[in-house]
Amino acid sequence: MATLTFQPYGKRTKVKVNQTFLEAARAIGVYIRSICGAKGLCGKCRIIVHKGKEYLSQPSEAERRIFSEEDLENGFRLACQVTAIREGEIVVEVPRESQVDRQRLLLRGLENNVMLAPAVRKITISLEEPSLLDTTSDVDRIVEAVERKTGFRVRIDYETLKRVPHVLRKGKWEVIAVIWRNQEIISVQPGENNEIYGLAVDVGTTKLAGFLLDLNDGKVVAAASMMNPQIAYGEDIISRIRYVMDNDANLSRLQQVVVEGVNRLISELCEKAGISPNEIFDAILAGNTAMHHIFLGIPPNYLSQIPYPAALQSPIDVKARDLALNIERGAYLHALPAIAGFVGGDAVADILATGVHEADELSMLVDVGTNTEIVLGNKDRLIACSCASGPAFEGAHIKHGMRAATGAIERIWIDPQNYEVGYKTIGDVKPRGICGSAIVDVVAEMLKVGLVDHSGRFNKEAETPRLRLEKKPAEFVIAWNDETSIDSEIVVTQEDIREVQLAKAAIYTGAYMLMRQMKVQLDDIQRIFLAGAFGTYVDPNSARTIGMYPDVPLNKVRFVGNTAGSGARMALLSVAARKKAEDIAKHVEYLELGAEPDFQNEFVKATYLPHQQIARFPSVSKMLGRSL
Amino acid sequence: MATLTFQPYGKRTKVKVNQTFLEAARAIGVYIRSICGAKGLCGKCRIIVHKGKEYLSQPSEAERRIFSEEDLENGFRLACQVTAIREGEIVVEVPRESQVDRQRLLLRGLENNVMLAPAVRKITISLEEPSLLDTTSDVDRIVEAVERKTGFRVRIDYETLKRVPHVLRKGKWEVIAVIWRNQEIISVQPGENNEIYGLAVDVGTTKLAGFLLDLNDGKVVAAASMMNPQIAYGEDIISRIRYVMDNDANLSRLQQVVVEGVNRLISELCEKAGISPNEIFDAILAGNTAMHHIFLGIPPNYLSQIPYPAALQSPIDVKARDLALNIERGAYLHALPAIAGFVGGDAVADILATGVHEADELSMLVDVGTNTEIVLGNKDRLIACSCASGPAFEGAHIKHGMRAATGAIERIWIDPQNYEVGYKTIGDVKPRGICGSAIVDVVAEMLKVGLVDHSGRFNKEAETPRLRLEKKPAEFVIAWNDETSIDSEIVVTQEDIREVQLAKAAIYTGAYMLMRQMKVQLDDIQRIFLAGAFGTYVDPNSARTIGMYPDVPLNKVRFVGNTAGSGARMALLSVAARKKAEDIAKHVEYLELGAEPDFQNEFVKATYLPHQQIARFPSVSKMLGRSL
Repeated sequence: MATLTFQPYGKRTKVKVNQTFLEAARAIGVYIRSICGAKGLCGKCRIIVHKGKEYLSQPSEAERRIFSEEDLENGFRLACQVTAIREGEIVVEVPRESQVDRQRLLLRGLENNVMLAPAVRKITISLEEPSLLDTTSDVDRIVEAVERKTGFRVRIDYETLKRVPHVLRKGKWEVIAVIWRNQEIISVQPGENNEIYGLAVDVGTTKLAGFLLDLNDGKVVAAASMMNPQIAYGEDIISRIRYVMDNDANLSRLQQVVVEGVNRLISELCEKAGISPNEIFDAILAGNTAMHHIFLGIPPNYLSQIPYPAALQSPIDVKARDLALNIERGAYLHALPAIAGFVGGDAVADILATGVHEADELSMLVDVGTNTEIVLGNKDRLIACSCASGPAFEGAHIKHGMRAATGAIERIWIDPQNYEVGYKTIGDVKPRGICGSAIVDVVAEMLKVGLVDHSGRFNKEAETPRLRLEKKPAEFVIAWNDETSIDSEIVVTQEDIREVQLAKAAIYTGAYMLMRQMKVQLDDIQRIFLAGAFGTYVDPNSARTIGMYPDVPLNKVRFVGNTAGSGARMALLSVAARKKAEDIAKHVEYLELGAEPDFQNEFVKATYLPHQQIARFPSVSKMLGRSL
Repeated sequence: MATLTFQPYGKRTKVKVNQTFLEAARAIGVYIRSICGAKGLCGKCRIIVHKGKEYLSQPSEAERRIFSEEDLENGFRLACQVTAIREGEIVVEVPRESQVDRQRLLLRGLENNVMLAPAVRKITISLEEPSLLDTTSDVDRIVEAVERKTGFRVRIDYETLKRVPHVLRKGKWEVIAVIWRNQEIISVQPGENNEIYGLAVDVGTTKLAGFLLDLNDGKVVAAASMMNPQIAYGEDIISRIRYVMDNDANLSRLQQVVVEGVNRLISELCEKAGISPNEIFDAILAGNTAMHHIFLGIPPNYLSQIPYPAALQSPIDVKARDLALNIERGAYLHALPAIAGFVGGDAVADILATGVHEADELSMLVDVGTNTEIVLGNKDRLIACSCASGPAFEGAHIKHGMRAATGAIERIWIDPQNYEVGYKTIGDVKPRGICGSAIVDVVAEMLKVGLVDHSGRFNKEAETPRLRLEKKPAEFVIAWNDETSIDSEIVVTQEDIREVQLAKAAIYTGAYMLMRQMKVQLDDIQRIFLAGAFGTYVDPNSARTIGMYPDVPLNKVRFVGNTAGSGARMALLSVAARKKAEDIAKHVEYLELGAEPDFQNEFVKATYLPHQQIARFPSVSKMLGRSL
């Protein structure tokens, strides 16, 4: 029996002949994702072999369909397929995305270490009571005490100042002062209490994510997310900007709506953590430029007009009360800086979280959303662009598309022999729609099994009752009526496929333009970070198959989840991280895709699956060549 | 004929024998105040003889009644009495308070010169339009341009920032930025416009005074005043503090009421000057500590409790919008610092305006109000105290007392022969009451003619139908029924006299305690500044006669009007003056009268007219000795 070690767990077992590594893992409590029933179809159970390749079974048909030649060379295998064929020492890694227990963490994004040095801190002050011999005023008394204790000159927040007289007496001259950046007393409280919390908010076009952190230890004490309630006023950035341009009062309306949303998040976070909103003394905002502007009440109007300038790129600290944000009144919200009109603080946070600005390796960062930001480079040079990828990956503009919620099909695989469909729903209930990751899957799978061709059209020769070419538009059945919870079939239409082609072409073209600008070849890219909620769930293989990002080996792809949230949390925990964010925003170059003369031409070529110039996707074309 | 020159006019004339100097003055257009019809009773026409004493008539009975020996030695004469008795060269000075045309100016207070260097200035900026090659954000664009032009690092006001995108385009990239203290862009405007105004406000317990200044030349373009509408909630500081202590919400109410009052003043000022409130880019607040606290929404509660600490002594800059003050939204209001709980920014402004902190001479400054602040010292050392003088001098708590408005008797004199009464009303209409200056006059006159005694009691021996001892309280008729416009007599009662005694005793005791603290004798005092609206109108002779301030020769007394307003205007025009104010507030010592063990005792002695220890008023006692 071979010896099998699972990294990063360090767990060891003996593996029998014909026992799959998936079975061996489960036996010792290592949980690897697998959703197709170990049939080699879903591709979720991938592992990377680091030692003992020579003792393993040859790649199965299923593995060859899922992995490119290069992936296989790099040690990628499916745990449900691979077995040991003779004795030896085998070491495999269960990568992040295959780890069952890491799924929740992924939601939170990459956890990058920062030195805990938040902008706010509490200090305890013991004051002398005033007397006829010392009638120093209350405010001067506390300010002087804070200055003596900290060694910094401080001012005092105006609203806080008004509370000083009562607080000093309530606390019997023992008080807590909350100091912001060693510059300002932003709150005073009677007595002693060391609790201090911060809020990181990622305001996305579609989703709001909030994190409550304990600033004493840097830990996330609660996380919550919700839809951006601005969706009622337009699904994407451009439609919201248009709404604002209709009427100046609409800006206030949109601002109010999103702040109310964030206030609901704050309530939820505080309830989860059992604290009061008044104990939140600092906040960070990350968001694309349009969301940032609207949140702050800054007109986004000119973002949509050439040359698309932001109204404000620099970081800014705004009093929570000026935003009607329901945290301690004297606290500041620090809005991360933007790189350009369409590459906002969220992209800065992505870079901060992934550390690409400090890395030697040439990295590409793709934060997929309704607007997708792409960054390419390393510590020497970084270029960024923004792609209008649209909301298809959020399930919008797709006949049975839906958000990643219970009942959404999140994974799809198609049997190459009979075109039968396997799927998995969120919550393992009857399906009621298809979410973004499965939409990518289904296009990739149809391409692989030959149900659609290079140009995205259904293959008229394919014989299966699921394919209905006579419908207008033509459609492919994913789930029959009796399987679903919506009293109708769930299908993918020719138009849905077209939407996916446009969306992925937008992203690929951006990535390609950055590579060209930087004179970078495929092989030069050492890492691709897939970020954003969608980037967490999408199958990297499926995404690469349809040509969403450059054709690099899977082992170069990292899933980093909501890095905008991670970067925001880093900035919350560390003033130095804010400084870095400011440097990033200043130094990252911006490429305006619309200004590239051949953009349209490149975009059209990129709508092909995976690309009109198939040579740009060498490993995908090889794989397709095999399975077609 | 003698040659007579009137200073400061430099006008010369020949004066005939038996022609009074008042007549000679009128003949050449020099207008000297006189309200009793040149009878030598009102004492308003006083002049100072600088040259040619030997050519003049001897002081008349009337002059001897009005002036002390020392005053006469110093050259004081009444223009309606003095004549030339032989040929010679005579030079007289018409002092400020006797000049008819200077009366309005006195309202405005001492005009102290400052170098024009206000906190705000406008700069014109020409910007490059953004292009695909330069997509710098709107805000960064303007901030960088301002920094280049000024050489200072600046931040930008948050509300102003929100207006930047539209303003830049409206102005076609030619804009005005208003810069505050070379630190912050507080406003942006399209196009070119050099007008820039500032507001100085003196918030008194009883009165609000506002001044609109052109910050380009430092000139007052409009002035206005009104009653402090907080009076409805209590006449004096203590009653307003009690009102606030009843209920925390009352603080907001009082704040709102006074801010609304100031906003009405602003409207009036702007209307007079023909400008918009948005053109006011800076404001200064001077006020006693309680008014300052309430205006800023700071609890004044503890001001009334031993040891009477202020909540805030330091100067503070608060955004106008945070106070709902109707000037440009991004502008700051600078509140002058306080010396102590009851010696506020108004006293600091007084000192700034009179320059006592920079003078070699030992000066006493008395700013008479409902609360009277007194300052004693010179550039080496200054001590201040606060006296609860009450509203008697504003006409309150006096049977027929009224404010200094049309129909108020402002000057009273009593014929020593027959106790007949002469008076002058504001506006020269039928009287409807008595204002503060006449209240002081009447007590002084009654003392001089023997209608009241040293202790303030009516003289039962005096024979005149005007004195009605049978009434409860006993009263003295100032104006008969048919003379008045109120269908009743106007009288002064025994209780009214008592009120005046208490009020003047409070002031004198403060002055005395300061002298004692500083080990200063009467002769050491080189100047007394009488400030405040009341201080402008009161007859210094009458005030001295009743013992309101130490018995110094009249030529040492200066009327300086509303110096709180003057100091506020200086601070508006000069950042350096603000710094001086801050230094003054820090370095002036405060004497808490309540902490002096013999305060009560001293106060009681001071209720006598002019004082129980008559030796403290040598010149007054000499004068009274003559006329009694």
